[in-house]
Amino acid sequence: MNTHTSNSEKALLTEALFSNRIQHVPRSFIREILKVAVGKDMISFAGGLPNPQLFPVAELQESCNRVMLHTGQDALQYSNSEGYLPLREYIAQRYWQQQKIRINPVNILITSGSQQGLDLLGKVFINPGDRVVIEEPGYLGAIQAMSIFEPQFIPIPLEADGMYPEALNEACSRHSPKLMYVVPDFQNPSGQSYSDSTRKRIAGIVDQYNLLLVEDNPYSDIRFAGQRKKSFYEWLPEKTLLLGTFSKTAVPGFRLGWIVAPDAIMEKLIVAKQAADLHTNTFTQQVLFDFLTHNDLEKHIARIAHTYGAQCQAMTTAIEDHFPAEVTFSRPEGGMFLWAQLPPEWSSKKLFDRAIEQKVAFVPGAPFYVNKFNDSTLRLNFSCTHPDTIRKGIQVLGELLTLQRN
Amino acid sequence: MNTHTSNSEKALLTEALFSNRIQHVPRSFIREILKVAVGKDMISFAGGLPNPQLFPVAELQESCNRVMLHTGQDALQYSNSEGYLPLREYIAQRYWQQQKIRINPVNILITSGSQQGLDLLGKVFINPGDRVVIEEPGYLGAIQAMSIFEPQFIPIPLEADGMYPEALNEACSRHSPKLMYVVPDFQNPSGQSYSDSTRKRIAGIVDQYNLLLVEDNPYSDIRFAGQRKKSFYEWLPEKTLLLGTFSKTAVPGFRLGWIVAPDAIMEKLIVAKQAADLHTNTFTQQVLFDFLTHNDLEKHIARIAHTYGAQCQAMTTAIEDHFPAEVTFSRPEGGMFLWAQLPPEWSSKKLFDRAIEQKVAFVPGAPFYVNKFNDSTLRLNFSCTHPDTIRKGIQVLGELLTLQRN
Repeated sequence: MNTHTSNSEKALLTEALFSNRIQHVPRSFIREILKVAVGKDMISFAGGLPNPQLFPVAELQESCNRVMLHTGQDALQYSNSEGYLPLREYIAQRYWQQQKIRINPVNILITSGSQQGLDLLGKVFINPGDRVVIEEPGYLGAIQAMSIFEPQFIPIPLEADGMYPEALNEACSRHSPKLMYVVPDFQNPSGQSYSDSTRKRIAGIVDQYNLLLVEDNPYSDIRFAGQRKKSFYEWLPEKTLLLGTFSKTAVPGFRLGWIVAPDAIMEKLIVAKQAADLHTNTFTQQVLFDFLTHNDLEKHIARIAHTYGAQCQAMTTAIEDHFPAEVTFSRPEGGMFLWAQLPPEWSSKKLFDRAIEQKVAFVPGAPFYVNKFNDSTLRLNFSCTHPDTIRKGIQVLGELLTLQRN
Repeated sequence: MNTHTSNSEKALLTEALFSNRIQHVPRSFIREILKVAVGKDMISFAGGLPNPQLFPVAELQESCNRVMLHTGQDALQYSNSEGYLPLREYIAQRYWQQQKIRINPVNILITSGSQQGLDLLGKVFINPGDRVVIEEPGYLGAIQAMSIFEPQFIPIPLEADGMYPEALNEACSRHSPKLMYVVPDFQNPSGQSYSDSTRKRIAGIVDQYNLLLVEDNPYSDIRFAGQRKKSFYEWLPEKTLLLGTFSKTAVPGFRLGWIVAPDAIMEKLIVAKQAADLHTNTFTQQVLFDFLTHNDLEKHIARIAHTYGAQCQAMTTAIEDHFPAEVTFSRPEGGMFLWAQLPPEWSSKKLFDRAIEQKVAFVPGAPFYVNKFNDSTLRLNFSCTHPDTIRKGIQVLGELLTLQRN
């Protein structure tokens, strides 16, 4: 037996040790795409990053210095699993100021990004085979996080004004889902938002079943058109779990998000949090809190929304100018993404391959679908690209799409 | 039906939604104890915290400023799931310098504390009912993290020189465990270390089975007596997963740990990491790397080891002076904990209740045992307490123990 044979036998043995659940998690297609979509001369609508030019670097540096000076030892020590209380109080207060929603800070758990919120919810609720309602197309990070716990996803199509209520009602009565995951404002990937009337109808349906609604709202503050909509929490305070994050409004690299949950659920989430990583980074929690108390977050957010709004406008106008009329697309009122729908016989994967040759990248829609293959949609990110570059890139895509028509 | 009835019905319904796994996780007894063990006049041997007086606050502040100035936008942005490459290269280099172990940086995954390493290993390997060998007494954080994935733990008694090899061999042949979790240096809670000969015997056993050995080494650098021992990696490079952390050597609040794993396992761990929280805090990874390149870590660690060594010595001497001769205790060569064994008919819980009245706290040993109740052991932490205070506190415990004898 030579070394080569011996090594492959070992590999086989390792394979046998893996858990069932890790086989169920989809590989990140976007990760692969982002590897292709790098390079200085690449126009990329593929990413999903906040614009780093808007990061409050100087202000956060000041906060680092203040925290080190005033509470250095404490800010570098282990801390509690629930999170830094002043930060949780700030979040509670902001729910009140922005949305007139009353949250007790003890019902807020600080998480390592809102992605961790999804992991903890999966741990606390999902047994293998449990039904989870998601949007179609759906947020890939949520699909990945929950897949670890082997649910059966029930995808409900998203319409222009939100999830289709009749389909939800049927899914609830037929499948008895435990959880329902929604991104009601400027959804990733579609850029669509739920209307107030759809929210009300959906809340009415959820109220009839033993079901928790997870409202993930990473983008809701980044609104550049229209009016703020109501949270599901207003109709369903005991059945709504709120996920939030500072990644889009302040700083993504600190990995600071939160979950709002009722007492009984919070107790379980804290156990899961402690098992997962003991607690969230103490220092950056304190730095962010210092930043929030020394700066005007609303003004900062307004600047982000203004920039993204101008970029979205440039993209929308360029699409109108350059895409064939058969292509429809969403009109986001905020967030970072726009969604385009090709005629069903066209291929966004083919478009992707040709676009990459011309140094333009985007994400084909296929990975955002569960249980089915859809090759005729694409996601376009506008948060990180200058309007002039957006126009150039969209023109290239428009020309390639026109070729597909012929 | 009044409101109260309606509310309790709702609570009942929530209960029905919880997953099976969350019912299996032990509540943190230590968490409860630490709540009792606060207060300025309390002498606490209950915690498990590094000494904050030794935190390099000024140096880390300098590093924060350098990172903000030089790579601010990049350090605040989302980053890759594997972790900051220069930090992984530093870790690989240090394995070589300290232990002559060659690790490729691509086989290092940065985690949100080494606690997260345990969560990711649980996700990647443990199906409900899978057997996992642990030490008895065992590290509570590992028991909690893995319990989420519903293994059957096989506890193997720890002797003065490590896990009892015969018992391990029998457990492997009878139960076919997938994983084995060991803390070979200055274990938490026992303070015991494995001798080189026990390591060799255990490696020989593990080599015969399809089994991965998880070597968790949070304390190995904090050695104040004796000689560094060999890692299991030297005998079992393809079967050993190494867990490491900067929490004890530099800064716990940054939550920075790592896993070393072979390619095939690393691929799965990265999928699990991405699902768990996308990636570890970008900023503090860069700050820590800057700190490591601008300061002498070995000198800093020597200072920590010197301080803890003096405190351990004070505790050992005070125990010899004040504890009844029936009580035996470990002689740690490093780390932060010492373990005492009472005669089996004495109660460490009773001792705890009386000690709290006298403003002295420690952790009774019961929570460190799985599948059995042991009321005659206790864990004493010495890392955070001045030698004079250690002597006072141990004297109080000695007097209370002498009362138990009578």
